[in-house]
Amino acid sequence: MTGIGPARISARLARHWRKTIMASKESAVLGEMYKSWVSTMAENPDMTVEETRRMFEHWGDVTGEPEGVDYIEVDANGVRCMWAKPKGGNETRALLCTHGGGYMVGSMYSHRKMFGHIAKTVGCPALIVDYRRSPEHPHPTPVNDCVRAYEWMLDQGLEAKHIAFTGDSAGGALAITTVLAARDKGLPLPAASMPISPWTDMEITGETVTTNEAKDHFVKRAVIEHMSATFLGENGDRKDPLATPLYADLAGLPPFFVQVGGDETLLDDARRFVAKVEAAGGEAKLDIFPEMQHVFHFLAGTAPEADKAIADQAAWIKPKLGL
Amino acid sequence: MTGIGPARISARLARHWRKTIMASKESAVLGEMYKSWVSTMAENPDMTVEETRRMFEHWGDVTGEPEGVDYIEVDANGVRCMWAKPKGGNETRALLCTHGGGYMVGSMYSHRKMFGHIAKTVGCPALIVDYRRSPEHPHPTPVNDCVRAYEWMLDQGLEAKHIAFTGDSAGGALAITTVLAARDKGLPLPAASMPISPWTDMEITGETVTTNEAKDHFVKRAVIEHMSATFLGENGDRKDPLATPLYADLAGLPPFFVQVGGDETLLDDARRFVAKVEAAGGEAKLDIFPEMQHVFHFLAGTAPEADKAIADQAAWIKPKLGL
Repeated sequence: MTGIGPARISARLARHWRKTIMASKESAVLGEMYKSWVSTMAENPDMTVEETRRMFEHWGDVTGEPEGVDYIEVDANGVRCMWAKPKGGNETRALLCTHGGGYMVGSMYSHRKMFGHIAKTVGCPALIVDYRRSPEHPHPTPVNDCVRAYEWMLDQGLEAKHIAFTGDSAGGALAITTVLAARDKGLPLPAASMPISPWTDMEITGETVTTNEAKDHFVKRAVIEHMSATFLGENGDRKDPLATPLYADLAGLPPFFVQVGGDETLLDDARRFVAKVEAAGGEAKLDIFPEMQHVFHFLAGTAPEADKAIADQAAWIKPKLGL
Repeated sequence: MTGIGPARISARLARHWRKTIMASKESAVLGEMYKSWVSTMAENPDMTVEETRRMFEHWGDVTGEPEGVDYIEVDANGVRCMWAKPKGGNETRALLCTHGGGYMVGSMYSHRKMFGHIAKTVGCPALIVDYRRSPEHPHPTPVNDCVRAYEWMLDQGLEAKHIAFTGDSAGGALAITTVLAARDKGLPLPAASMPISPWTDMEITGETVTTNEAKDHFVKRAVIEHMSATFLGENGDRKDPLATPLYADLAGLPPFFVQVGGDETLLDDARRFVAKVEAAGGEAKLDIFPEMQHVFHFLAGTAPEADKAIADQAAWIKPKLGL
């Protein structure tokens, strides 16, 4: 009755092939949103910081609702934060989450659902840091705020070995530089860190910034040039290891798991960081998701690639946190 | 130096006039979103309930983030709910919030921010009821779930006189019918209720359903005919007072404050309900917001009309709750 002839098999294989090789239909919405933002910014060169931030607050509109996660704002040592607490999560473990947005836009609200998905999948609360942003608060305020939030977590009785960091884009860099700044301060280090599409190079020298410029619908050179200058100020040092961790001493750090989209201009930022950690004798795992855009994890709950990436993060981090 | 000539005065008056008479520029986005939904539904007559719900989950995308509000999911007597708790709110007072969506779509997530704004402005927690929806759970399951959530609030030690109801659209009807069902059950009644754009007539006989059909970008006759049939089932009684409270005994109820947009097809649902409460000797206040679309309160934090409406609700309800 349901004889499987060659045509049927071929359709199955095609579906399988599509699933494993090509970007999902559902993932397209992120690129479309990015295109609309880039054209809005191009058409409105005088957009204020406030207007730009308002636009980027819609980042999470493409994210599915994680459900079963509570959100509680806290003052963490003077730093505004939000707990994303999954029901039934192990509260002796925690994630420190640093949102992206070029150190200028994005917030604990825009990233609420994305980090909520990660917290729920890992099975412990996530503290989303609403660090102060440039231009009002240029480097090193963001990384200092993240360190203060981390110290607050330790003050709450959480053990460093039971904490992992994660963050995306500029927040992916913070998931690295907060480890470095914690080390410099003599604090105990977290169990591990999972940067997502991290922006590790304020000099913007990655080859993929050029080679992926057409495929990446958001992180165009002009966009990050502007953000880099805003973050570091006119005469800022683009080689500062707490801004460009490619220049940092990366020896003796906890293990890293980096995820990045194959269509990203920042692909080389991820590759070079992982190579440098390995060259320094450390552990760093890199997963490149073909055809994916910058921080495709925003598609959590709506596209399979994002759910797969987060499931991979959970599988990697849970044994390290004893979960 | 800043001499005010006739031209200057005229510009001021024009601004004032625009502010007081015409819809704000910011409010247009809601109508645009509604237009896109109506055309999506028209182009996809075979949309599943699941797909329709997914689309409507974006309702809150136009709402600003209230900030300073925590969100905690709870099981309220077997009914899924979410507390929206403003920081510093008086937790001896509370709102019971019933979301809209034709009893079929919408959720405690789509309405999180809107009710978060109301809770924050009033200054007490809001319990958002995620009642079960049709077609899986037709009438009277939604109203019964809301009554169970209300009983749970009373079980928590909240006094009825310290509770107010509010809700929008179908949830605006629930903000009425839950009072009626509570009365029928012999429960103490809440202090007051504030229905927003309530859908009080399953028979769909309001004149504005026709006269405002062109101006209302969402609540077209075809849309609510479908929702009414789904909610009540094939042979449902459209005159059931717990579905169409225009047929209810409205004497001896707590005071109502109804807000509605002037461009709504459901304008007459609001007008007729208020008239019937008054005819029954009760207290009901009606405010019509010119040129506004259905549940313009979704624009809280982004358009002045919504913020004004919520401020009006707070001014009206706070003395009644002793806040």
